[in-house]
Formats: sequence, C-alpha cells, structure tokens
Amino acid sequence: MNIRVGVIGVGNIGTAHATNLAKAVSGSSVSVLYDFDQKRAQELAIELGAKAVATFQEVIDSPEVDAILIASPDKFHKEQVIAAMKSGKPILCEKPLTVTEADAEEILAAEVSLGKRLVQMGFMRRFDPGYIQLKSEFNDDGIGAPLIIHNIHRNTFAAYGLNTEGTLTNSVVHEFDINRWLLDEEIKSISVMAGKASPLTPDGQKDPVLVIMESESGVLITVEAFMNDQYGYEVSCSVSGVKGSADLGEGSFVTSSKKFSRGSEIPELWLTRFNEAYRIQLQAWINSIREGKLPVGSSIWDGYAATVLANKAVEAYRTGKKVEITLKAKPGIYS
Amino acid sequence: MNIRVGVIGVGNIGTAHATNLAKAVSGSSVSVLYDFDQKRAQELAIELGAKAVATFQEVIDSPEVDAILIASPDKFHKEQVIAAMKSGKPILCEKPLTVTEADAEEILAAEVSLGKRLVQMGFMRRFDPGYIQLKSEFNDDGIGAPLIIHNIHRNTFAAYGLNTEGTLTNSVVHEFDINRWLLDEEIKSISVMAGKASPLTPDGQKDPVLVIMESESGVLITVEAFMNDQYGYEVSCSVSGVKGSADLGEGSFVTSSKKFSRGSEIPELWLTRFNEAYRIQLQAWINSIREGKLPVGSSIWDGYAATVLANKAVEAYRTGKKVEITLKAKPGIYS
Amino acid sequence: MNIRVGVIGVGNIGTAHATNLAKAVSGSSVSVLYDFDQKRAQELAIELGAKAVATFQEVIDSPEVDAILIASPDKFHKEQVIAAMKSGKPILCEKPLTVTEADAEEILAAEVSLGKRLVQMGFMRRFDPGYIQLKSEFNDDGIGAPLIIHNIHRNTFAAYGLNTEGTLTNSVVHEFDINRWLLDEEIKSISVMAGKASPLTPDGQKDPVLVIMESESGVLITVEAFMNDQYGYEVSCSVSGVKGSADLGEGSFVTSSKKFSRGSEIPELWLTRFNEAYRIQLQAWINSIREGKLPVGSSIWDGYAATVLANKAVEAYRTGKKVEITLKAKPGIYS
Amino acid sequence: MNIRVGVIGVGNIGTAHATNLAKAVSGSSVSVLYDFDQKRAQELAIELGAKAVATFQEVIDSPEVDAILIASPDKFHKEQVIAAMKSGKPILCEKPLTVTEADAEEILAAEVSLGKRLVQMGFMRRFDPGYIQLKSEFNDDGIGAPLIIHNIHRNTFAAYGLNTEGTLTNSVVHEFDINRWLLDEEIKSISVMAGKASPLTPDGQKDPVLVIMESESGVLITVEAFMNDQYGYEVSCSVSGVKGSADLGEGSFVTSSKKFSRGSEIPELWLTRFNEAYRIQLQAWINSIREGKLPVGSSIWDGYAATVLANKAVEAYRTGKKVEITLKAKPGIYS
Repeated sequence: MNIRVGVIGVGNIGTAHATNLAKAVSGSSVSVLYDFDQKRAQELAIELGAKAVATFQEVIDSPEVDAILIASPDKFHKEQVIAAMKSGKPILCEKPLTVTEADAEEILAAEVSLGKRLVQMGFMRRFDPGYIQLKSEFNDDGIGAPLIIHNIHRNTFAAYGLNTEGTLTNSVVHEFDINRWLLDEEIKSISVMAGKASPLTPDGQKDPVLVIMESESGVLITVEAFMNDQYGYEVSCSVSGVKGSADLGEGSFVTSSKKFSRGSEIPELWLTRFNEAYRIQLQAWINSIREGKLPVGSSIWDGYAATVLANKAVEAYRTGKKVEITLKAKPGIYS
Repeated sequence: MNIRVGVIGVGNIGTAHATNLAKAVSGSSVSVLYDFDQKRAQELAIELGAKAVATFQEVIDSPEVDAILIASPDKFHKEQVIAAMKSGKPILCEKPLTVTEADAEEILAAEVSLGKRLVQMGFMRRFDPGYIQLKSEFNDDGIGAPLIIHNIHRNTFAAYGLNTEGTLTNSVVHEFDINRWLLDEEIKSISVMAGKASPLTPDGQKDPVLVIMESESGVLITVEAFMNDQYGYEVSCSVSGVKGSADLGEGSFVTSSKKFSRGSEIPELWLTRFNEAYRIQLQAWINSIREGKLPVGSSIWDGYAATVLANKAVEAYRTGKKVEITLKAKPGIYS
Repeated sequence: MNIRVGVIGVGNIGTAHATNLAKAVSGSSVSVLYDFDQKRAQELAIELGAKAVATFQEVIDSPEVDAILIASPDKFHKEQVIAAMKSGKPILCEKPLTVTEADAEEILAAEVSLGKRLVQMGFMRRFDPGYIQLKSEFNDDGIGAPLIIHNIHRNTFAAYGLNTEGTLTNSVVHEFDINRWLLDEEIKSISVMAGKASPLTPDGQKDPVLVIMESESGVLITVEAFMNDQYGYEVSCSVSGVKGSADLGEGSFVTSSKKFSRGSEIPELWLTRFNEAYRIQLQAWINSIREGKLPVGSSIWDGYAATVLANKAVEAYRTGKKVEITLKAKPGIYS
Repeated sequence: MNIRVGVIGVGNIGTAHATNLAKAVSGSSVSVLYDFDQKRAQELAIELGAKAVATFQEVIDSPEVDAILIASPDKFHKEQVIAAMKSGKPILCEKPLTVTEADAEEILAAEVSLGKRLVQMGFMRRFDPGYIQLKSEFNDDGIGAPLIIHNIHRNTFAAYGLNTEGTLTNSVVHEFDINRWLLDEEIKSISVMAGKASPLTPDGQKDPVLVIMESESGVLITVEAFMNDQYGYEVSCSVSGVKGSADLGEGSFVTSSKKFSRGSEIPELWLTRFNEAYRIQLQAWINSIREGKLPVGSSIWDGYAATVLANKAVEAYRTGKKVEITLKAKPGIYS
C-alpha cells in the first residue's frame, strides 16, 4: 500500500520532508502540495510528480491525499491542524505545535474530542539514532537512572536574526521535548539565566543563555543555547546517571590529522546532523499509517507540553525568576 | 514509478535486502522470491506481500518483476547472472561475483556482449557514509593524495568455521573492492603473511593474516584480517596522505563512562555497522532504474577484479610469495 | 641550591607531597616531618632520610628547614600558617586555606602585614597540563573569550562519608579556585540546586548537586558535583567561548577494544588523574624559592576567596537562594 | 645523595637532557659539560651551574662527575662509551648505540668483559606512560597476547634532509627497540617496501616507507615511517591481541570545536610528545644509581639488537628482499 501525502507548506523543512517522502521513504509518495508561494509549490510539484493547489484546504480535501504533513509557519498550525483533523486523515505537524498555550490547548481539545490520536508532532530527535542509543543506557547494564542532564545546543549563526525569546521558543523547544522523552516525565520548574553575551549579540538581546529545569522526580536539567557560535552546529546531551554517565556526540566516522590538528568535521547546519532522524521519522509515520496503528513519536500532548514550557521559559527570562510549570490533566488518549 | 524486484536467494543477506526493498527503500517493492529452501521463501513472501516461486528462472521471467536481485550462494552466481542478463532487466548481484576467475571472465564477456552495463555488484561499502567521507579527504583541502592505506577487518567469530582461504575470498574481498575504489586504480601485486595464530585457530589454518598490496601508482595497502577476535566487529581504514592522514572509525554517537572505562559500544555483527550502507546501496540501485540511468556503484568489472585478487591472494598465501596481478584489458563499457 | 623542606602533616596528601619532594622534584629534599600520628611520621622520616619531630613548631623553627609544607587537617591551617609566617620561610599550604571566613581573613591580614607574599596555596589544578592547555584556548586563534563554563567533578565513592556541605567545601572548592583562575576574575553570585539523589545517599543529604555561579563580567559557571558515582574519578571542564568551545578530558593515551566496547580506562582515585599536577606544583614552588621569586600559583587571596565561596555555597544550599558574594578589598600585594 | 652528571655532547638532545638533570630530576645536578662547539658548552654550563671542559675525556675523568651521559653524534658513541666504561661510572648513552654492527659488537664485548651492566641506552619510549599503559593490556583482563602490531611514525618534516636509509637507522630505530620491548622477544626477519613517494621527496629517495617484521614467535609487525608528512608529529602503535586490540594515541587533554572542526592539537616536534618520557627516563636512571641498582630500561644488548635491525633494514631496502636476522648469543649479564 502506497500512502499519498499532501504537504502544506514547502519552505526549507517542508521541501525536505516532501523530498524524503517522494524519494527516500518506503511506501509513500507526494501527491498534492500547497504553499503561500505558489511558484515554489509548483516547481516542487513538478520535481516530485505531484500537483500544486491554491489553498491548504484543497490539500486536506483531495481524494488523492491519504495523509497530511503540515510544515507551514508556526502561526498557521492551529487552523490547519484542526481543519486537517476534520478529514480524519493521519497528520504529521512540524514543531512547535503552536506559539501560544491557548492555541495548543485548543488543538489538544480538538484531538481529545476525536477520541483517538491522529497527529504525530515533528520532534525528529526522538528518531535520531544517537538519542535512542543514549536513552538505551538508562538501565542497570548501562548508566542507571538519570540524575542530571546537561544539554548543549549551538548554531553557527542565528538564521533569522537573534531574538532571545525566539531562542527559547524555536531552538530550546527541541530540548523541552527531548528531555521529557528521555525521562518519561514532566518538567515542574524552569529558570533562564543570561550573562555575558557574544559580541555578535544585538542590543537588548542575550546569547548564549542557560536554561535550568527540574523534572517531577527531581532530575536537574541544564541547557546551554547559543545561536551565534560562529564555528558550526553542535548538539550534545550528557547524562549523569546513578552508576555511570553518557554523552551524545556527533557520530563522526572519520578522524583526520592535518595542519597540526586531529579531529572530525562539524557541520554548518542542523539538517546535516539530523538528516537521518528526519528520514526515520517519516518512515515511522508512514509505517504506522500503513499498518493501521496509532501515531508514533511525539503526540499533541507532547506538543502542548513543549509550548507551555516555551512560554514559561520566556516568562522566566523576562522576570529573572524560577517559574513553576502546571499542565492540564493528561487526557486518557495520551497514556 | 514503483520498481518490483524479484529476489533469488533469501538467506541472511537476501532476506535483509528483500526486507529493505519492501520496507525501507523509496520506489520499490518485492514481488517474487525464490530460494532453495522453499519454506523460507514462502514465509518471507507472506511477510513482504510477494509470491514464492519454484525456480530462479521463474523470478527472471515473471512479468511482475522489473529488476532482479541475486543473493544466492556464490557458486550459483554465474549461471543466474547470465540467465538474468538475457531478460534485459537490471540486476544487483551480491559479492563476490564468482569463486573462479574463469567464471568471472565469462560473466564479464556476457555483459560486454550486451554493449551496456546491466549489473550492479553488491559491494555495499562504496555506499557507506564513512568510506565516502574518507575518500572526500583525498584532496588539497584534506589529506592530499593517498600514499599508504592500512585496513583492519575483524570479526567477532568465524561464522562458518575458520578457513584461511575463505578469509581471503569472502572477507578480504571487501578490502579488495574498497581499496580499488578509494584509489581509482588497479592493484598490481599481492602478498599474504600469516604468523602467530589465535589459540582459537584450527590446525592447518592461520588467523589473523596480513595482506600487502601495491597499486599501479605505487600506493602500499595493508589489510589485517582477523576472523575470531572475540570482542566485536570492527572495520577501519587509515590513510596516510601527502599532507595529512585520515582514519575511518565506527561513527558511534554515544560515549559512556561506566565501570572504570569510558568508551562506546562495538557491535557483534557486521550488519549493525553496515546496515545503513545496505539501505543506501539499494536506494541508489532503485533510483538508477527509475531514472533510466546506468547502474551505480561496483560493476561487473569491479567484481571480476575482486575475484582475480581473491584468487591471487590464495595463491600468495599458499606459496608464501608475492604474486603479480594481470587483468584483462578493460572493456570500454566500464570506463 | 637544595631546598630542605619541613612537612607538617603526613596523611595521604602530605605523604604524597613529601615523597615527591624527596624523590621526584629537582632541588629539594625533606628534612623534618611532623604528624599527630608520631609513628607514621617516624616511618616516613626513615624512608625519606628525614627526621620526625614532636611538634609542628619544631618543624617551623628547625635550622634544617628552608621551606614549610602544611598538609595537616583543615582546622589547624590557621594556627600553623600564621606561626610559619613568623619564621619568614616560604610556605605551601594545602587547600582549603581554612574552614571559616574569619580564619581566612586572619591569615590574609597576617600575610598583608608582612608586606609581601610568602604562601602558595595547594590548588594543584592550576599546574595540571590539561587545565593549562584549556586556558591557552581563550584567545582569537582558539575559542575566544569564555561565555559559559560547565564543570563536572565526580568521585567513585565518598571517601569520608557523604555530607553535602562537605561536597561543597572540600570538593567543589577546587572548582571555585580553578574557575576564578580560568577567568581571571571574581565570582559575584552562587546558587546550589539538589534534586534527585543517588540511592547511595544517606537521609538528609543530597548527591549529586548542581552549583551555579556568575562571574563579575557575567560568565555563567555550572558545576555538577557527584560524590558516589560508582564508576570512577572524572573531572571535566567544558568552555563555550565566543568563537569555539573546548572540553577538558582525561588525556588517556590508550584506547582499547574489548568485550564489545571501545574506550579508555577511568581511574578510581583523584591522585591518578592529578599526580602530574602535584609534581609540577611542587617543582614550581621549589623553583620560585631557589630563584628568590614570589610564590607562583594560588595565593592566600585565592585561598581566602575560595573559602568565602565555600561558605556562601553552604548558605545557598541551606536556604535554596542565590547568594551574592562580596569579598574584602583586594590588598595590593596580590595584584 | 646527589648524583653529579657529566654530559658529553650538548646539541639539541644533550641540552634537553642536561636541563632536565639540572632542573627537573630529583637527586641530580650537572657538573661538567663537553661539546665540540665550546661556546655552546660554555653558555649551557653557565646556565646550569656547571663547568665546561675541552675534551670528553675530562668529563669522564673528573672527580666531580658521578655518572656520564653521552649525547654526542652517533659516530663518536663507540669510542666514548668504551672510554667511559673504563671509569666504572654509570653511563646513559643516547640512541642509536652505534652506526655499524661491528662497533655495537665491540661495545657489547667491552661491557660483557666488565661482568656487569653499566650502561643504559636512551630509548626513552620505554618510559613513556602511553607505551607502558599499552603493554599493560597484554594479559587476560586486557587484549590478550599480541598477534599483529601496526606502528606509525610520522614527522612534520625531515629535519636533516630526507635520506631513506637515515629514516630506517635514525627514526625507525625507535620502533625496532620498542617492539622488541613490547613483545619481550627478538625480531627474526625484516622487509622494507617503498612505493609512491610524497612530492617533497628528493630524487633517488623514498618517503614514506613500510617496514615489515616477524618476531621469533611469529608476531607480525608493520611500521609506516613518513618523514615529511607536513601536518605534525604523530606516533602510534596499534596492537591486535588474542581477545582485543589497543591503540596508542597522543594523550591529549583538550578537545576543542572551532572553525567547523572538532579535535585536538598535534605537536610539530617529537620533543613535545616525548618530553615526559625523557624526564622519567632520567629520573629512573638517577634512581638506579642512587639505590646502587643495575641500570633500568634499554641495555647495551638492546642497543646492539637495534643496530643490527637498522643495518638489516638498510640491506632489505637496498635489495628489496626479506632479510633474516641473526644475533649473537645473548651474554648472561643481559638475561
């Protein structure tokens, strides 16, 4: 069975997803595309053997679309996800779920009212072989239960200009999700510190920042987020467990010695690091659809929790205070 | 366009290929299977939505088969590849091409008589991200032109019993191919040394062995091959270049500290290390078919060269002498 | 010129120092020893060709003593250092300088009243080749100016029983000193967080803990301190700079592959990791004396600052609040 | 007890030794110096508080000299070592022992006629913490008994001009010694291959070269030696054992990420890598003298064996053939 996917939004990440679905994922094709930039949609449609349409609703309604991928700008997610849900077709929605908590709650309510999960969130790190291996260490043969987690998230340059609140809502949102997944529990408090800034930082902004969280069971989580590191894209996650520690690195295959230095390459952009995670995420989504199973990976609940954390992080950053996190009661379809 | 693949031989590697084609490769499905063990073929056919047939010729002739993958025991390759060629369908043949030089020459002549390449050899390392990155260092921004290459090929245990000639023809055959590919030139001589043996080595056999080769331009290539290392599957390739050196490692993502040791896991079996190379190899094969292009990767010429090297390695091992390599003139379709 | 050192206190670290001075440092010998445990002092004296005396004052006063090393329990430091200062002989005092701020201030005043520095503090990490190399990266050819520093300090087991305040005053005190040295500036605030505890932690205590500091210029510094990690002694220091990052590791020479794991050994005890730093520290001390120069390394001012930080860390831990650090005005002899 | 050392030859390495003895080794001083370049000797003497003399014999005969270090050009070793032996004073002789086998045999006979060992050879790698740790893996808890050893010895540039025979006699001589030490057995055959040369190689010379040896028990040993690698000084030694493998690396403490690369520094010159081995070697020599024990480390026998291997390597290189090694019967004082 081939799953014909309709894609809403074909900017950078939407194009990457559509291309993977058409060329690198087993059992899927791309049938219909929509983008605000119609020329862009048209060109990609030709390349992928799909057709471009004039509205996102046409993607949702098309009889040639078995499943819907939403990769439009964040602010459109609420309207589009809710509209897509009405079709009953499986949905993959790019992160973050929404910008505001209210919008996230509305989507959450909408899915709960369906009585079953229909949406997979695009937090691709959950499919990264590195993070999966890291989590596999959390047992008695490995490092034991986690006690402290230190995350690093560094970008070569702030692609869309540096805005510290954007750092929290767009970049650190990955750490909000992946640490919840690593621990299988919720975050109960968050603080944000910002000290000495890189000289590339505009007035009124801070870069890097340090985010400090506590999980329900008391695990301490720190995140160093740096948007203008100038040297490359690096993500790491170091876990101190009861009887060992484990560090997620870059998984480089080649170490070379040249010019008085021995080492490995660092990519400039995040897609190089997580290229494989994106492909595996899509394959897992398509597989779940083909097999008639529930969505895998991150859920609307996870997307809601990440949006709450992002908002509380902004509050913590603005006030300089520790902010407690309270989530709504977790609906039964997510347990 | 979906490419329906017929698979001849579904032992370990044939099953892995068929499963990848059905579940992990974009644009392909598995339609027909044959194996000497009919029950095995039947079970896999059910799992993959294919049908099992009673002879390899039925796979070749089936109108539901667009392309043919041959993963039967080595000794059947000649007959099956030549039969498959007659269908004009694209073919992927597992390594090694054949056991004897005469058989390899016969296949080579058969493809040359077609006037174009139809067969891709299953030397999957050419698609391994590690080897590809290693080769990308051979330039002025990297390590410069290679001068000496040191390969290591270690297996946890000799899966089919230890036979030193088999080490050369079945394991080191990968190094024969990949070093030719790394250097883009032929090997002109080969020697094999065998000294102190692991205590697990049966009488009359040697393990490990050291293979020493010279390329046409004089690059020296050594291969340490060890079939019973007891500790895990490790492959490495270290290149000393004009202005730098580069080492291919395992590409591990996670480094953990536990029990007074800091390090990463070593897999037990080769498939873990080259799983991704196998998938990419198949995707590249399917892509070349969908796009109506020539086969990529290793060719029948490469398969022939590797078979010659394997045979000369056995001669070098038996005689204890350096053996010169002379290949036939390279037919035009391979240049 | 040979410097004859008198040693006060020959427990574990005092014995290590005395042995280094007698056998591994150029230009020094050990002439007189004192320990509360007279038998221990007597035995070591015989081994090192020194003599044991009955009081610490005899060490100070001995005409056979050119310089004094104090490695007694922390609580005796104040009395002994002040007594030793009166002799005008060069002094090396083990860390921490004192337990209380008042005692540290008293020693500080005593040295200031001498009008010149006489004492070197035994914060040996300043002589560790690793930390020195790390600091050498803080420039434009390296990683640029530091912005965030993440330290890890893990012990295999809590040698003297686990007491969280002791973790701060005895273990993290090393990070208090070394981060001040790395940054060449003072710390202005400190917080301590303690969440989920290792199951080995006694009731009422916490392990691990997370210390968070801000330097005067705003550099954020975190320290994970874990006393019962069960797997080995590990210290690391990771610096995020304006244009790069650098990580201090263990400096292991050998990587081995065995039992499905590839890695290097982790020592059980701290002395293995810092053995060389201790030797170099003593050599630097002896060299400064032979050359008639001022003491090198950590000063009484540094010892005072570390004691203040340790006390404020305990306050921060007890209250759960961020504590501001105010040091006395820095006397001129320390600038 | 202080050992007053007389030093014969204070070129680069002689100066390094003398400086270590005067400033970094416990229990030694430098009392008398000789060099062909009298100005150089005079200047160093002033710096180290020694006196310079006009002949090497004066160093040997001086009543202020307790032990003699010979670091003159190789061709003078025979005369000087034999003269020094007559004094009965302990001697440390830089590697190689001699250029010719005949000279080595003459020194060997001279020491044997003394009836006891008086000379330590300056093969400093035996004191390198890395090689020592590597050898410590050769047991059942480690990698088991060695079966194949692959050595790499690369220099940034050929300091004295490139001469392939000199590569073998001056650089690879370190591998001749250290592999004998690692295995505790003799080498029984040697071959030398030289293929494609670096473009920096003068006409008539070869660089890199590959040396292949077999030990008495059949261990295969390869050495890649490259004098003009352009990128830094690197030495490695990789051992494949019965149940594991181990690789000697650089022991770097700091890994930094900058300019799209993550790695550690490679030194330009060998002294940086082996600085510590040189110091430990001298301390061990001085300790053996102070304690009235036999010399430690490499002996005249080892120096003789290395000289034989170097000569046979040159023969193998010239003839292109494998050369068998036959040593004299090992005198009793060396077992």
